[in-house]
Amino acid sequence: MTTASRPLPKSIATVSLSGTLPEKLEAAAAAGFDGVEIFENDLLHFGGSPAEVRGIAAGLGLQVFLYQPLRDFEAMPREQFARNLARAERKFDVMEQLGAGMVLVCSNVQEAASDDPARAADDLRRMAEAAARRGLRVGFEALAWGRHTRRWREAWQIVRQADHPALGLVLDSFHTLALGDTLDGLDAVPADKLFFVQLADAPRLSMDVLSWSRHYRNFPGQGELPVTAFTNAVLRAGYAGPLSLEVFNDGFRAAPARLTAEDGLRSLIWLESEAGGAALPAPPALAGVDFLEFAVDAAAGQALAQRLQALGFTHAGRHRSKAVELYRQGDVNLILNAEPDTAAAGHFAQHGPSVCAIGLKVDDAGRAMARARALRCPEWREPTGPGERTIPALRAPDGMLFHLIDDHGAERSIYESDFALADWTRTGAAPVADTANADSGHAGLAGVDHLAQALPAHRFDSFVLFYRTVFGMQAEALHEIADPYGLVRSRAMVSADGRVRIPLNVSDSGLTTTGRCVQAHAGAGVHHIAFRSTGIEGTVQAIDRRRAGMLPVPANYYDDVAARLALDDTLLARLQRLGMLYDRDAHGDFLHAYTAPFQQRFFFEIVQRDGYRGYGAANAAVRMAALTQLEPA
Amino acid sequence: MTTASRPLPKSIATVSLSGTLPEKLEAAAAAGFDGVEIFENDLLHFGGSPAEVRGIAAGLGLQVFLYQPLRDFEAMPREQFARNLARAERKFDVMEQLGAGMVLVCSNVQEAASDDPARAADDLRRMAEAAARRGLRVGFEALAWGRHTRRWREAWQIVRQADHPALGLVLDSFHTLALGDTLDGLDAVPADKLFFVQLADAPRLSMDVLSWSRHYRNFPGQGELPVTAFTNAVLRAGYAGPLSLEVFNDGFRAAPARLTAEDGLRSLIWLESEAGGAALPAPPALAGVDFLEFAVDAAAGQALAQRLQALGFTHAGRHRSKAVELYRQGDVNLILNAEPDTAAAGHFAQHGPSVCAIGLKVDDAGRAMARARALRCPEWREPTGPGERTIPALRAPDGMLFHLIDDHGAERSIYESDFALADWTRTGAAPVADTANADSGHAGLAGVDHLAQALPAHRFDSFVLFYRTVFGMQAEALHEIADPYGLVRSRAMVSADGRVRIPLNVSDSGLTTTGRCVQAHAGAGVHHIAFRSTGIEGTVQAIDRRRAGMLPVPANYYDDVAARLALDDTLLARLQRLGMLYDRDAHGDFLHAYTAPFQQRFFFEIVQRDGYRGYGAANAAVRMAALTQLEPA
Repeated sequence: MTTASRPLPKSIATVSLSGTLPEKLEAAAAAGFDGVEIFENDLLHFGGSPAEVRGIAAGLGLQVFLYQPLRDFEAMPREQFARNLARAERKFDVMEQLGAGMVLVCSNVQEAASDDPARAADDLRRMAEAAARRGLRVGFEALAWGRHTRRWREAWQIVRQADHPALGLVLDSFHTLALGDTLDGLDAVPADKLFFVQLADAPRLSMDVLSWSRHYRNFPGQGELPVTAFTNAVLRAGYAGPLSLEVFNDGFRAAPARLTAEDGLRSLIWLESEAGGAALPAPPALAGVDFLEFAVDAAAGQALAQRLQALGFTHAGRHRSKAVELYRQGDVNLILNAEPDTAAAGHFAQHGPSVCAIGLKVDDAGRAMARARALRCPEWREPTGPGERTIPALRAPDGMLFHLIDDHGAERSIYESDFALADWTRTGAAPVADTANADSGHAGLAGVDHLAQALPAHRFDSFVLFYRTVFGMQAEALHEIADPYGLVRSRAMVSADGRVRIPLNVSDSGLTTTGRCVQAHAGAGVHHIAFRSTGIEGTVQAIDRRRAGMLPVPANYYDDVAARLALDDTLLARLQRLGMLYDRDAHGDFLHAYTAPFQQRFFFEIVQRDGYRGYGAANAAVRMAALTQLEPA
Repeated sequence: MTTASRPLPKSIATVSLSGTLPEKLEAAAAAGFDGVEIFENDLLHFGGSPAEVRGIAAGLGLQVFLYQPLRDFEAMPREQFARNLARAERKFDVMEQLGAGMVLVCSNVQEAASDDPARAADDLRRMAEAAARRGLRVGFEALAWGRHTRRWREAWQIVRQADHPALGLVLDSFHTLALGDTLDGLDAVPADKLFFVQLADAPRLSMDVLSWSRHYRNFPGQGELPVTAFTNAVLRAGYAGPLSLEVFNDGFRAAPARLTAEDGLRSLIWLESEAGGAALPAPPALAGVDFLEFAVDAAAGQALAQRLQALGFTHAGRHRSKAVELYRQGDVNLILNAEPDTAAAGHFAQHGPSVCAIGLKVDDAGRAMARARALRCPEWREPTGPGERTIPALRAPDGMLFHLIDDHGAERSIYESDFALADWTRTGAAPVADTANADSGHAGLAGVDHLAQALPAHRFDSFVLFYRTVFGMQAEALHEIADPYGLVRSRAMVSADGRVRIPLNVSDSGLTTTGRCVQAHAGAGVHHIAFRSTGIEGTVQAIDRRRAGMLPVPANYYDDVAARLALDDTLLARLQRLGMLYDRDAHGDFLHAYTAPFQQRFFFEIVQRDGYRGYGAANAAVRMAALTQLEPA
């Protein structure tokens, strides 16, 4: 196996990015791509000449790897051939000005094309000869919906038969994988005939391949196709040209080009490593959520502390040098940060009261940070006081921080280092609460079960890629939940052993609870924090349900759940009395209860999972409807 | 053929509408429905009891025709049957409180279900017997993705075999037509066994039927399924129950419920008439666009007049009693209305300078208005001065007015009645322009070729329905056009002989030229007015291209169009010199040129079609890119 340990050049087709041609080129360069494919319409619609485009690209340090596409060329009726060749010559004129050395010819889709590989080979050989006279090259690609040539092997037979040094094969992961095909047999193709490789992933959708291709492609790691195996085969075959993204995606067309380009490069770096090329440091083993940090001001901090106390949290310490308080229950550490001039304060200014940082327990923080850096995640260093620990941190695409915590070799926990801890924390037993309500002591919450993020709809794929590449998390199945004012889509990202679970929620409607949360948060936010209880009935009885803002559950829900899941009357009565919801999957039971949102931004959930593997999606619509009745849209 | 001349009751399933259950009921009642189907989740998520829902519905004058659905009931393993019957009894409890006399049972989708129609019939008979004890009825429906029962004929065989008076058949247009099935053979089913009919249309999409059904259904007249033939068969079979809409649509879930409900009732009234039931007056024969009226203030009016004069329009008259000016060229009449306290002034206040009214030439304005009224379009009467004509008018769903003009029996044209016309209008020859630029006289524009509307994405289906039902226009194929900042979808509505053509444009992205126009117009607007030229080269030479704001065309475009369509060099040079675009279809050639938008709201186009039937969609992306370069997003 000949794997390249040196990275291959990285490229992106301009059609993958939003904006005018100069904007696309700037975005590709800013992200760090080596070059681009120029999509024909991007050039045609640009007011400047091809030579000006060449100048812009050169000024940005970008190569123009490919001009694309030339369509419906080969195997047309004879009277058409001279016209087609004349058309190709005009495109070669453009390529010379553009500084593009290669043109992509995709297999003919016209009814008039003849099913004659020999003629196709002859036509392409003559085009290649014309290209070669100008020092240009021609790459031939099988479109999945080509009239006669749909598989890469068919395209290869034509290229082989044409037998011209300026004619080679272009491979495209989407066109190959969408047909359920593989690259088996690619080893037989000489490496110098592999002219170019285009990469795209896609969700598995059962629709016609043309619509799927034109609207739903995404970057490798964002979809469900076996792009890694495809790329591995490409590398094994000795391909040494650019890895180039070619993505047609309605969302990408409308999203900020810089963010899309950053995702694209992250995707390619990750893919190359997964496929056995230039390697990344291994992803971290995630052992759980160590802490959540909330950005607050004094007033929000006080209100949130009261809400937490109602849920059984106890004040556990004050930061040694900052206006930062620690609340604790079981293994849950919640940090309320009101210190000015910190990352948290910046987050508060932009997003209001919100989760500004998450502490994740990892096996090796140094290796995890090295991987994140290689994947172009910005690193963050918070200024620290004397004796305080520096915790490595990286910024997620929405600006939230992830702190990476490993306690290998540390004498003291980060809490002991940074906080003046309350005496009770040394014994582990929380005192009876410091509020008037004796119920609000330790209520049996043991850890963080999951955290959900509400994202703007066009950022969904971006966060799937972030969690998958940086933390090695896997995407679970997509759920659709009917909010009264529109659909919400939810997909959980989960670490290898399930100790960190982050459902991502989006909605095309701005009126759903998710959509409204995105707006309230100015586009970023953990909006849902689920705590694991060791005994949810005890927890729900121990907390101050009124002050915790527990969400009412409609009586009709209980009528239905009883009928649907054949619950016995005793259990049903207990559920209803305590305002709990119930779900069940093949693995076990799930009991849970929601709070109303804190200042319309995030809410808490208490869960008890007895083998159950989901997130209560069946009941999420109940929550959404209840919220709508509390706070009409 | 037994057609009902009395209208059948009209119903809508609550799942078709956005909001909480009370909001849905209010919207259905406000639109004028007779009753509803209560979708189970709408009830489960509602905080009040079923009896309260019954009270709300009764207070609004709505019947509860159906409760739905009860799933996965029949032909399960024996040990499950008692549980299923207990579940059904609990649902019957709910139905009694709700005042719903019928429950919808849809065919079982569970793997565990046995392929045994006799057992299915037996189970359903026993359920029907239980229902009958409470005076309730059971309707059985074949889901298109049912495990064993997918076709209505299979469901009917089971219902027939069960042979219980409280058990009947529910027909659903989507489940039938999505499988390519028809209602052939329905005459053999006794009318009293047709318990209920659910109606939905859908665009033709090649995807799995479940996804298609759950996300893309729409109202009859908005899609492409043969729902009229389906409904005709239902009426011929003697069905006399409600016609009920059951639509799962992502857009409808997020759209204002009142607007959706209004569309729904319009759809059913039209469908019933088309299918041979209660009849509507025939749609008008549209003979063309008589005038366009722009809402302006003094400043915008002056600026627009200058733009029109640059395009060769001449001032043709002043309104007898209002601050309204008429400009004319060929058969194009453009009215600039700056009169306070009129519909135009209201339109201006809400939308800025914009087309506030369109005058359509019809064969019989009285009949057209009667049809529009029957389809629940609001009528509009503008106050008139002495001697002025009252032109019947109706309001489109976005508030724009359509005036219906027939000159049968009128002594004078509406312009002669209402305007003090310039002398030249009597000879037909426009004078040399009243501006300093001698070029801006009559430039050869002969009529309105087409008008395009930019709509908010969720209003697309609504306007398709409006033009189809009220004016009898047909929907042409959907085009997708790549704006630099997202996709634009376009579908033209066209009158029988093509004399009125109205492309409708939407974009999910707010950054496209279409999306930005929708925002600038506050959600309503003709944004594109194409004038027909009898000789476009002469027109483009005659107008003041600079003051008309003609849009520049990139040189790269000409390189491509020459290569792609093999244009001769002479034509190419003329196109480029005059800034014209070129397209061709199977029917002929198309030459056209665009202006930049007037105050970022609407733009003009000059077209010459020589047999060509499209709208230059191939070149629309050139326009969008040029606009983006003039006015970056």
